[in-house]
Amino acid sequence: MKTVSENRAFGGVQGVYTHQSQATGGEMTFGLFLPPQAQHRPVPVLWFLSGLTCTHENAMVKAGAQEHAARRGLALVFPDTSPRGEGVADDDAYDLGQGAGFYVNATQAPWAPQFRMWDYVADELPRVLFNNFPLDEGAQAITGHSMGGHGALTLAMSLPGRYASVSAFAPIAHPTASDWGRKQFAAYLGADEAPWAAHDATLLMQSQGFDGEVLVDQGSADQFLDLLMPEALAQAMAARRQPGTFRMQAGYDHSYFFVSSFMASHIRFHARALGR
Amino acid sequence: MKTVSENRAFGGVQGVYTHQSQATGGEMTFGLFLPPQAQHRPVPVLWFLSGLTCTHENAMVKAGAQEHAARRGLALVFPDTSPRGEGVADDDAYDLGQGAGFYVNATQAPWAPQFRMWDYVADELPRVLFNNFPLDEGAQAITGHSMGGHGALTLAMSLPGRYASVSAFAPIAHPTASDWGRKQFAAYLGADEAPWAAHDATLLMQSQGFDGEVLVDQGSADQFLDLLMPEALAQAMAARRQPGTFRMQAGYDHSYFFVSSFMASHIRFHARALGR
Repeated sequence: MKTVSENRAFGGVQGVYTHQSQATGGEMTFGLFLPPQAQHRPVPVLWFLSGLTCTHENAMVKAGAQEHAARRGLALVFPDTSPRGEGVADDDAYDLGQGAGFYVNATQAPWAPQFRMWDYVADELPRVLFNNFPLDEGAQAITGHSMGGHGALTLAMSLPGRYASVSAFAPIAHPTASDWGRKQFAAYLGADEAPWAAHDATLLMQSQGFDGEVLVDQGSADQFLDLLMPEALAQAMAARRQPGTFRMQAGYDHSYFFVSSFMASHIRFHARALGR
Repeated sequence: MKTVSENRAFGGVQGVYTHQSQATGGEMTFGLFLPPQAQHRPVPVLWFLSGLTCTHENAMVKAGAQEHAARRGLALVFPDTSPRGEGVADDDAYDLGQGAGFYVNATQAPWAPQFRMWDYVADELPRVLFNNFPLDEGAQAITGHSMGGHGALTLAMSLPGRYASVSAFAPIAHPTASDWGRKQFAAYLGADEAPWAAHDATLLMQSQGFDGEVLVDQGSADQFLDLLMPEALAQAMAARRQPGTFRMQAGYDHSYFFVSSFMASHIRFHARALGR
């Protein structure tokens, strides 16, 4: 692991690090905010998964999360959204290939060898983090924006016991029925739709739900409502009697101005679930 | 005036607007955050002047100011740092020309016709703002980062009665004695150093001070300490018995992680001075 940068922030440290990844076969970059409390004891971890076109950096500099994480004593992890670099497969479209990993393990050419973001976020990056930083592996929560909200919800429902709580900002809620999903799942997972269901938050909510509280915020003026399909997830949450909250926020769009506006609320939600 | 974008944020609106500027002879862009309170009555205004290389956008998306401004009912103005565009003079260096207006009215070629950021921020942009938005012209305060901290301090001391309070994050504190200042003043104002003094916060503090409270934050690990010269301003503030606070923040650098870490404190400071 190599340190790219460390900046003092809110009494803690906002770091950026790189490491060689087995899951993706190349160098990966992530951001980690350690709150001041981490100087004294291992702290809980809130994962933030980012959306299409983002790197580790977007949420790290625009979501306004560190201030609230510092107050509550939570670390924040900002993974990248895909493998990157010259030897890595890519596509001209913004929503496929680099910057668009969709938090799945690709099985199809040319993506299969490197686009394994599920394994990266679920298995490999946790080992890097818990081996190198004062973090409490038994106290994790997860959130994300857009494609990252999809990642947060699907990881949380698929790994019961791993995360105390899950939240999402304007998640891609029903990708098997959306052009944000069908295109990528066909490319990464193949034309057979059977394996797609494991990566659809609405279908997972219907089939199993989450063993804890769920919080979802969605802007009513989001320019991508027809691709996100929040109504499918809201219906599934209510039908399952899933403990949690689905909020339609009047007038908000898909930007980080929306994400940052409700970050304090999400961090309070996760801190409570983590007993902080 | 034209609307570039408006995003709902923290119950208010983060807007970006352009207008034709007499002062700079071209189109200028600015950001304006209106807090929720502006729906009901004119609100106080906090100016945020940005540093070298910045546009209106950097602080708008990275300083974390809107959350605290919304809580206190303050509007935030984010002007650009210079005229821009193809017909505008420029220099290859990052610290001269476009992105480096230094908040002066240039008198020298090729800068004189357009690099009039003092007039723009002191006179023209206020008229645009107070004619078009629900803002209370009698309730203004000003802050800024680096070159923008220099701008905030020099404007505040030179326009007594205009701003209720002034603060700065890592300001260029003594530009007539620094390579961040001498180079630009020579280019914009000419070789005769007499007019430079009106644009040096330390010299203005020595000669007149500010009729109100001053707050300055400086990171002890700032990579530009030798160019910023905070010790000159600290000495001048103390020698004048200037009401206010100079804080050396241990371990912080020059980045927006530093700025955002203390933004809540600066907005509280200005809100108090504005009676909010």
